[in-house]
Amino acid sequence: MFEQLGLIGCGLMGSSFALALKRAGLVKRVVGYSKSPSTTERARQMGVIDVEAPSALMAVSGADIVLLAIPVSATEATLKAIRHLVGPHTLIMDVGSTKRDVVDAARRVLRENVGAFVPCHPITGKEVSGVENADESLYAGKQLIITPIERTFTVQLKKAIDVWTALGCHVMQMSPQAHDAAYAAVSHLPHLIAFAMINGIKSQEHGKDYMALAGPGFRDFTRIAASDPQMWRDILLANRDELLAQSKIFQQSLQSLEELISSGSGDALQSLIGQVSETRASWRISSPKTNK
Amino acid sequence: MFEQLGLIGCGLMGSSFALALKRAGLVKRVVGYSKSPSTTERARQMGVIDVEAPSALMAVSGADIVLLAIPVSATEATLKAIRHLVGPHTLIMDVGSTKRDVVDAARRVLRENVGAFVPCHPITGKEVSGVENADESLYAGKQLIITPIERTFTVQLKKAIDVWTALGCHVMQMSPQAHDAAYAAVSHLPHLIAFAMINGIKSQEHGKDYMALAGPGFRDFTRIAASDPQMWRDILLANRDELLAQSKIFQQSLQSLEELISSGSGDALQSLIGQVSETRASWRISSPKTNK
Repeated sequence: MFEQLGLIGCGLMGSSFALALKRAGLVKRVVGYSKSPSTTERARQMGVIDVEAPSALMAVSGADIVLLAIPVSATEATLKAIRHLVGPHTLIMDVGSTKRDVVDAARRVLRENVGAFVPCHPITGKEVSGVENADESLYAGKQLIITPIERTFTVQLKKAIDVWTALGCHVMQMSPQAHDAAYAAVSHLPHLIAFAMINGIKSQEHGKDYMALAGPGFRDFTRIAASDPQMWRDILLANRDELLAQSKIFQQSLQSLEELISSGSGDALQSLIGQVSETRASWRISSPKTNK
Repeated sequence: MFEQLGLIGCGLMGSSFALALKRAGLVKRVVGYSKSPSTTERARQMGVIDVEAPSALMAVSGADIVLLAIPVSATEATLKAIRHLVGPHTLIMDVGSTKRDVVDAARRVLRENVGAFVPCHPITGKEVSGVENADESLYAGKQLIITPIERTFTVQLKKAIDVWTALGCHVMQMSPQAHDAAYAAVSHLPHLIAFAMINGIKSQEHGKDYMALAGPGFRDFTRIAASDPQMWRDILLANRDELLAQSKIFQQSLQSLEELISSGSGDALQSLIGQVSETRASWRISSPKTNK
C-alpha cells in the first residue's frame, strides 16, 4: 500500500495507471501534474487524481511512488525537475516504449539515486489518447517489461514487480538493449510501416477513393497508423538504430517477394506465403493466462 | 428465387454463400463441386450443399445460378470445363479478389455468352479457410464490388445486384481496371507487406523471441499474414503490375520517413505522422449503414 502516487503526465497511460491503482486499493492519494493545466484540472474532475500539482516537483513532494507517463523525449528534463525530491526510498517508474534512452537519461540525472528508478514498458495502449480515455482495465492481463540495470535497487525492483502484478500484468525482465531490439522488430517497425503506407496512399490522386473501398483487412492493418504523433516521433527517434536495422531487413524481405512476383515464380511464392501464414497462425499474444 | 445453385468451390467463400442463399430462402437446391472429393462430401454432410457433383460441369447442369468460388488462377480452366452448359439465361458469378484477369479469362472462354458472367468481389473474408468455417453471415453488411464489362447482360447484372443485396451487401459498380488499382493499394499491398514483415522477423536469430513479446498492435497489423497461401499467391501474381506500382510508392514513402528519422528531423516527422494519424482516425469502413 502506497501513501501517495506522484503522477507526472495525466494522459491515457498515466490516468489509467492512477485509476487502476485506486481500484486495487493500493494508494491513498494521487497528486497529479500535466504540462497543460487544463488536463490536470480535467484529471481531478474525473477523479483520476485527488490533488492538482502546479509542477512536476510538487507532484513528487511527499510521494512514495512516482510514475512518469510522458513522451520519452521529456524524460531527462522531467527527472532534472524532480531530482531534488527523489531519495533512495522513492519508487520511480516510467512507461516509455523505448528503454535505452530512458535508462541513459536516468543515469545522467539521478546519479547515485538511479537505483530508485525502475524502467517499465507496459505492452498496451489505445489509438485514442488523453485523460478522457482513461481506462482502469488498460493494464489487466497485459505484458509488462521491466528493464533493470545493474544499479537498480532490489527493493524497488521488488516493489515495481508487486505493483504491476497486482494490476494484473504479466511481468517480464530483460535488458534495455534486448528490449529495444525486440520492440524495434515487433512494434516500432509495424508503426513505421503503417505510417508510410497511409502516407503513400494519401499522396495519390485517387487515394481517398481507394481508402473508401477498403475492408476489414485494411482496418486492422492500419489501426496503429492512428497513434499519437508526438509519442511516436519520440519512439522512432529514440530507437532509430535498431528500427532502421529492422526496416532494412524488412525491405530486403519485401524485395525478395517482389522478385518472386515479377518473375511469376508461383510455387516459390506460395511456399514462402505458406511458411509465413503458418508462423502467424500459430502465434498467440502473450498473456498471464497463456504463459503460466 | 433460384431453382438451383451450382457451387464450384466449397471453401469458405463458396460455402458461406450457399448457406446465406439458403437462409434467405432464395434457392431450392444446391449442387456443389470441389476439387477435393472429401471437401464436397463434408459440404454435403454440413448441409452446405444438397447434392455432390462429380465435376464442375455436373454442378452447373440444371443450375440457373452458378458461383465460382475458386482461386482466381483456376478461373479459365473452370470456365472451359463448364462452358458447354452455360447459356444466356444462366447467371454466373465469381468472388475473386482480382478482376481484370478474371474478366479476360471470361472473355476468352465464354465468348458470345460472356454477358452471362457477372464479375464480383465481396469485401469480406476470414483468416481461416475451408468449409468448416462456413458462415452464413459472412456477407451481411459488407461491400460487394461488381465490375461489369460493356457486354454484360443487363438482366444478369440486375439479378446479381438483387441477390447480393438480399444477402445484406452494399453493392457498388466500377470497372475491372479501377477495381484492381484500388485493391492493389488497400488490400494487396497490405498483404504483401504483412507477408514480408513476418518473413523478415522469422529469418532472424531471435525472431521467435521477438514475436513472443509482441502485443495487440502487432496482432492486428499481422492478422492478414495468416491468409490462405494459394489464394494470395494467385492475387499477387494476377494483379502484379498495379501491386508493384503501389509497392514502389510505399517504399518511397518509407524512405522519406527513414530520412526524417536518420536526420533527427523531429518536427517534420511529427507533422507527417500527425497528418497520417488524422487521415486514419477519420477513416471509417464502408458499410450499408454508413453509406446510405
